[in-house]
Amino acid sequence: MNKIDLNCDMGESFGAYQMGRDKEILDYVTSANIACGFHAGDPATMRRTVRLALGKNVGIGAHPGLPDLVGFGRRPMEISPQEAYDLVVYQIGALYGFVKAEGGQLQHVKPHGALFNMAVKDADLSEAIAEAVYKVDPELILFGLPGSELVNAGKKASLRTASEVFSDRTYQEDGSLTSRRHENALIKDHETAVNQVKRMITEGKVVSIQGSDVLIEAQTVCIHGDGPHALDFAKHITTDLEDSGISLHKISDIV
Amino acid sequence: MNKIDLNCDMGESFGAYQMGRDKEILDYVTSANIACGFHAGDPATMRRTVRLALGKNVGIGAHPGLPDLVGFGRRPMEISPQEAYDLVVYQIGALYGFVKAEGGQLQHVKPHGALFNMAVKDADLSEAIAEAVYKVDPELILFGLPGSELVNAGKKASLRTASEVFSDRTYQEDGSLTSRRHENALIKDHETAVNQVKRMITEGKVVSIQGSDVLIEAQTVCIHGDGPHALDFAKHITTDLEDSGISLHKISDIV
Amino acid sequence: MNKIDLNCDMGESFGAYQMGRDKEILDYVTSANIACGFHAGDPATMRRTVRLALGKNVGIGAHPGLPDLVGFGRRPMEISPQEAYDLVVYQIGALYGFVKAEGGQLQHVKPHGALFNMAVKDADLSEAIAEAVYKVDPELILFGLPGSELVNAGKKASLRTASEVFSDRTYQEDGSLTSRRHENALIKDHETAVNQVKRMITEGKVVSIQGSDVLIEAQTVCIHGDGPHALDFAKHITTDLEDSGISLHKISDIV
Amino acid sequence: MNKIDLNCDMGESFGAYQMGRDKEILDYVTSANIACGFHAGDPATMRRTVRLALGKNVGIGAHPGLPDLVGFGRRPMEISPQEAYDLVVYQIGALYGFVKAEGGQLQHVKPHGALFNMAVKDADLSEAIAEAVYKVDPELILFGLPGSELVNAGKKASLRTASEVFSDRTYQEDGSLTSRRHENALIKDHETAVNQVKRMITEGKVVSIQGSDVLIEAQTVCIHGDGPHALDFAKHITTDLEDSGISLHKISDIV
Repeated sequence: MNKIDLNCDMGESFGAYQMGRDKEILDYVTSANIACGFHAGDPATMRRTVRLALGKNVGIGAHPGLPDLVGFGRRPMEISPQEAYDLVVYQIGALYGFVKAEGGQLQHVKPHGALFNMAVKDADLSEAIAEAVYKVDPELILFGLPGSELVNAGKKASLRTASEVFSDRTYQEDGSLTSRRHENALIKDHETAVNQVKRMITEGKVVSIQGSDVLIEAQTVCIHGDGPHALDFAKHITTDLEDSGISLHKISDIV
Repeated sequence: MNKIDLNCDMGESFGAYQMGRDKEILDYVTSANIACGFHAGDPATMRRTVRLALGKNVGIGAHPGLPDLVGFGRRPMEISPQEAYDLVVYQIGALYGFVKAEGGQLQHVKPHGALFNMAVKDADLSEAIAEAVYKVDPELILFGLPGSELVNAGKKASLRTASEVFSDRTYQEDGSLTSRRHENALIKDHETAVNQVKRMITEGKVVSIQGSDVLIEAQTVCIHGDGPHALDFAKHITTDLEDSGISLHKISDIV
Repeated sequence: MNKIDLNCDMGESFGAYQMGRDKEILDYVTSANIACGFHAGDPATMRRTVRLALGKNVGIGAHPGLPDLVGFGRRPMEISPQEAYDLVVYQIGALYGFVKAEGGQLQHVKPHGALFNMAVKDADLSEAIAEAVYKVDPELILFGLPGSELVNAGKKASLRTASEVFSDRTYQEDGSLTSRRHENALIKDHETAVNQVKRMITEGKVVSIQGSDVLIEAQTVCIHGDGPHALDFAKHITTDLEDSGISLHKISDIV
Repeated sequence: MNKIDLNCDMGESFGAYQMGRDKEILDYVTSANIACGFHAGDPATMRRTVRLALGKNVGIGAHPGLPDLVGFGRRPMEISPQEAYDLVVYQIGALYGFVKAEGGQLQHVKPHGALFNMAVKDADLSEAIAEAVYKVDPELILFGLPGSELVNAGKKASLRTASEVFSDRTYQEDGSLTSRRHENALIKDHETAVNQVKRMITEGKVVSIQGSDVLIEAQTVCIHGDGPHALDFAKHITTDLEDSGISLHKISDIV
């Protein structure tokens, strides 16, 4: 039987600023990537989000980002591998504080935004991130794009890794995501999106933008928590996957 | 035989900014209070300081402060007990990340600056801090002034506590420190300072500014890491205490 | 004929975080208090807000706050008068950059949140703020509560001042606002709120919570820009005041 | 007669953290580039530095940097031209506040660190920076490397520009600086450094690392304010240039 994890970024509110509908989206996802205060999030938001996730038995992950609150961690910065190591250790630790205080367990790490994207093709950066994760806790699962240097580095560091796919993004024939700068980067139709995910899970394949089938490993699907249709889509894909005989599990029950 | 811990704030550099002579002072103290990035410190500094302390077998403590880098955590802020809880959990966790990554153990928590001072007489704030410490790790030792609400709260929360005394500050007849605003708040003579500490350790007493003897429990002595004479004084007091038959131990070997 | 200014805090978005409905509220108010990056706001938001305000001929004011983004500048901090002076000069200057770049003029300064509240009864703090305003530009108008130390300090510094009243807050018999901690601090009924404002403008009086009439000078009314009913209320009060023969002007056309 | 400006970065202290020997170096330079709070500096430091510079009749410039305090503005970030425009307007404005409060005049703008380096070859970024400077005040002088896109953009925007040369850096045959990654990037010998500067000023030429003479325009020389020999070198070069009949003037007296 096919199993999949659905993950979503959350805990991205900051002080008086609200973002995302964490409480509701937690009813549909199985793993939560919780911001750790560098690109988004603050101590109070982290505490609340950890409690919410534990209350709904959702797997908790650290979602470390670049130190760029005003840019929401989306602007690439030239940081050294050592700087990446340090900021990942710091942020995992900070979230770990709340997880431990609430009596829960930390399950995974998914770097955020520009840090995640920079790691796709940068082996040194990826190895620094993987080392940071491993040294804080070798049981943590590292999320990355299939075929990315981040997943490679995770395996090399003896970490469990999770290959993350997208329902609403198109793929290139080399298995990489189509850049958001291209007009056909996004899949806007719900049914097409759900069907892409189902095929990735059940057949391990996706049709690339060039028309050819590409092998792809799907262990976790990225679900969006904001935007006007986020909640509808989360509900929709959850039901649809379960109806197709695909069961939803937090990633620690899969890899 | 009399035992005492010598603690010092450190890891207070930030990016390109250097502060303190951590490496050298670590030769003389037995416990290190490491800044966690709110009032001072940054991930790289935390990593380096944790490594240095472990290399010299010095007990490692988290030194959480108010979120006020430009004010060095010295300006009182009206935060709620919940906010104090959250920022203490966050900062202990962040330091814990580095301690775990380096294979060490976290020993204690000493709040910094205004947060420490605000807690002296504020029971609600102190209980929030003690709860934060306890929930992250009930084995951690909480530092506070003798007779302070912080020590009371720590005991109430079933934490081990450490009663901290000062060599270079004068005391009031109620056992509290003379405010820095008063001209005779500081003891500038080394010998007087060392003698005050010795008597607190061996007799449990200090002469107040009013002339009377006051009972005081001394489990750890605060040593300063910056200023022109910091290193000299640290060396001096270490030798002098040992010559008097007082042995130096990290606080976890004492309380 | 009676004249009044309606002012509203705005430009409080930050990076990816949206706050307030600035564009719409600008159709109803005559003066805008624009956040300057310490408690809220960022350079991009400041530029956009200045442009919007100029496009609608709304008077532009700097809205400097405490350096506490996560607390939205609402948590009192013990800052020295010199620190207050410095952070006010900095923030007025920063906003002035955008106003000058857009070819506009800076009209007024209204301190934000805890800084505004701290200044009500603190003469030294108020004098530092007034001096900062005066030294950057003696033509700027300083907003403050009637009878506050801030207004006193503004007058002493030869600044024009604007006495600010609230439609939705109740008053004490000494003319001060009822603390938000009291249950009857807020006026929730629109008509009562509008009537209170009308009477303050036309008669210079308000009924205190104790039942007695209090003299109060109303030169500008604080309008809220967020909350579910903010826009409705702004529209409502604007129409109602104009129907009562009270004309709306930016503060520089009044004081 | 030959004229030159000597400029130095300063005001880079932050809160309790000291950097540079601003007070002393101001005796030797003619223009000061004052940090504006993003990569370094804080409101109090800006006020003090502006006062010091005015007191010694040194030309005051804004030294805007990337929003990266922990990285001291040295880490390249992928910011859009619009983001560059916004952060330059903000920072010039902030410094302008202090300059105006002290009764002085703002003379120039020199971007800091990674922002300065990124602008060398990026025409869009440079045009955004030049536009920001021009729109805040068209009388400001923009500093840049000779032949850089920043100087080009400044001229295109009708700004006066200042061509900045280095005494302690070697040059390539295309007139660019040798990258710091190369071992021969730095000139460590004082006499060689001074002679390079003299020839750039009097002959408009420099010997490149490849051995050929390169034409170079020298209007301002960058002097360093930190490091163990900074003050000695500043004193040395000042005397030496004056002895050679080169007169020192703030840049506004030259371009």
